[in-house]
Amino acid sequence: MNVFRHVVMFRWAEGTTTGQQDEVAARLRELPAVIPEIREYSLGADAGVNPAAYDFVLVADFADRDAYLAYRDHPSHRAVVERYIAPIAAERASIQYTT
Amino acid sequence: MNVFRHVVMFRWAEGTTTGQQDEVAARLRELPAVIPEIREYSLGADAGVNPAAYDFVLVADFADRDAYLAYRDHPSHRAVVERYIAPIAAERASIQYTT
Repeated sequence: MNVFRHVVMFRWAEGTTTGQQDEVAARLRELPAVIPEIREYSLGADAGVNPAAYDFVLVADFADRDAYLAYRDHPSHRAVVERYIAPIAAERASIQYTT
Repeated sequence: MNVFRHVVMFRWAEGTTTGQQDEVAARLRELPAVIPEIREYSLGADAGVNPAAYDFVLVADFADRDAYLAYRDHPSHRAVVERYIAPIAAERASIQYTT
């Protein structure tokens, strides 16, 4: 079945600690429990295979575009972005597509 | 079950035609038939929700890192990259992680 998928990668700023990076992952992992629109939620740090790779990725699946927008604009999601991600993000790459 | 996932996004160069973009998708879609290491292969163009989004994304799953490397370095994959993707790619963002 087709889903509306959101993919986002981040490159963390120089000097970012492992603790800060782990905190981002931990806070994001709490979101599926509070945002019912999330169907699948997969995230992880770069495996270190390719030197030019980004540092962190999130792949999230939703029933449709509206469900994605509910997630994007959900206060709990915005709080994680503002408090934990934005302060350490140097670069961001994202896209949404229908699988 | 955990998989080794490769995610890559492209931003196409200005002036790239829809035909060129469709050709990339079509050529990539031929790869699962010739590279048995590919377990899941999902690709698509940006849905147009967020203005800063990249143009194209591919999410590919493999049993492990070695299976991904077999794909990455496979001549059929390299041919698609060199003939169809590289000539129109302005920006590339990628990461590999274990789900």
